[in-house]
Amino acid sequence: MAHKNVDLGRLLKGTSIIPVIVIKEMGEALPLARKLVAKGYKTLEITLRTEFGLMAIMEIAEAMPDVIVGAGTVINKGQYEAAIAAGAQFIVSPGHTDALIEEAEQSEVPFLPGVATPSEAMKLYDKGYEYFKLFPAEAVGGLKLLKSMISPLPQLKFCPTGGINEKSASDYLALSNVFCVGGSWMVTS
Amino acid sequence: MAHKNVDLGRLLKGTSIIPVIVIKEMGEALPLARKLVAKGYKTLEITLRTEFGLMAIMEIAEAMPDVIVGAGTVINKGQYEAAIAAGAQFIVSPGHTDALIEEAEQSEVPFLPGVATPSEAMKLYDKGYEYFKLFPAEAVGGLKLLKSMISPLPQLKFCPTGGINEKSASDYLALSNVFCVGGSWMVTS
Amino acid sequence: MAHKNVDLGRLLKGTSIIPVIVIKEMGEALPLARKLVAKGYKTLEITLRTEFGLMAIMEIAEAMPDVIVGAGTVINKGQYEAAIAAGAQFIVSPGHTDALIEEAEQSEVPFLPGVATPSEAMKLYDKGYEYFKLFPAEAVGGLKLLKSMISPLPQLKFCPTGGINEKSASDYLALSNVFCVGGSWMVTS
Repeated sequence: MAHKNVDLGRLLKGTSIIPVIVIKEMGEALPLARKLVAKGYKTLEITLRTEFGLMAIMEIAEAMPDVIVGAGTVINKGQYEAAIAAGAQFIVSPGHTDALIEEAEQSEVPFLPGVATPSEAMKLYDKGYEYFKLFPAEAVGGLKLLKSMISPLPQLKFCPTGGINEKSASDYLALSNVFCVGGSWMVTS
Repeated sequence: MAHKNVDLGRLLKGTSIIPVIVIKEMGEALPLARKLVAKGYKTLEITLRTEFGLMAIMEIAEAMPDVIVGAGTVINKGQYEAAIAAGAQFIVSPGHTDALIEEAEQSEVPFLPGVATPSEAMKLYDKGYEYFKLFPAEAVGGLKLLKSMISPLPQLKFCPTGGINEKSASDYLALSNVFCVGGSWMVTS
Repeated sequence: MAHKNVDLGRLLKGTSIIPVIVIKEMGEALPLARKLVAKGYKTLEITLRTEFGLMAIMEIAEAMPDVIVGAGTVINKGQYEAAIAAGAQFIVSPGHTDALIEEAEQSEVPFLPGVATPSEAMKLYDKGYEYFKLFPAEAVGGLKLLKSMISPLPQLKFCPTGGINEKSASDYLALSNVFCVGGSWMVTS
């Protein structure tokens, strides 16, 4: 049976860009989510960097059932579980730890783990992972790193995030091993 | 109880730049240390790259009690223990291994482990670490990497080292997740 | 007793550049190998990225006994064993996993593991490894990364691969911690 991580391929099939959102005040989530959906975004990543993140996931999951909402910046088991309880359909982390991987194994909700080197990705591929967040993309090798992995490791698919803007996003999306891109440029403008 | 690594925040509170020193001949350590202290440096990292390193730590620890002296380039358990016996107040490594982490758990002297990716830092954060050496800073993403980690991982604090000079040091020190910078530019000039 | 990985130092003593080869059709391997040997190359890395890789290793091992032939892009135990059965004299991977390291421990044929950070290399050094592939070299820090490791970690030797061309190869080979360079520029021209 395929690993749950592989479900991300299906879940995010129609998604090329994922807005990565930091909610800074109460009541901000729904208006912002509606604005982004109006711009054409179908998938939103609400980070747990602020205390408003979980509530925002809950509000969007309830009020906007057509939106695919994920939880970002999840760095421990407690956040993983709270995000699912709030309605997150996928879980994203800037990296990965043994505890997060263990939690993901037990969960029904797929995990998009952050990686920064081929070995970090290969170790998770051995566990069944095929979809990864490359973070922070621009700092750890960006397009060069991704291009270099296409030939030896074509089975690994990446969502580069970190330092990407509207212009560079299309360069990333043109690569065969990039399934989507994360960024915040559309949130702030 | 906080992890011993967190003691580094207190120990290095007044330190913004750590000279990283390679002792190349007998008798060089104390004059060099005095010269650096006269320039305002309070903390010195004496590397174990040469056979004079341990003796230098011993001499400085004994003759200059106001200096905070650490041992650098520690890559195994034997060096860790020898450095402490010589009087090192903290232990630095270009990276980290299971053996070094195990040794650090048992030791009273705090360990500043080298990391180069978010996952390397997050795995140690799960064990209680909050202070890291980013090495080699300029090669593995430098300012870009550190800036990208501020928003998702503000709890991780870094001492970037490797390829930094007097001019770039201030750019690093301006970042909220940089607690000090390591370098050798002040040693050779 | 030294780790088998250290045998790579002897095996590749006369090799400064390793052509990294992707065989795209039946019958291509021997003519290509002969052309490369005529140009002066002594060691060839045949990747297992295509279904022709194993057969190519077998053909070269049998018909050209003076050539040192290795298997590249080995990412699991099955490929490791098949490559040896085909006659590979060394095994290369873009990274390393627990499964590959375990397989290498049991094998008579040395493994050149891919690494991208000091900690990835140090963890394997603790197991006896001294020779590493740095991959993808240009993307993960290249010359800067290698230069920064010379002073603290002179015992680690690298074969940078990924994004290197004929011109930059000599810059890499000039470093004391580079024992050879991998590339494909001589294959396509």
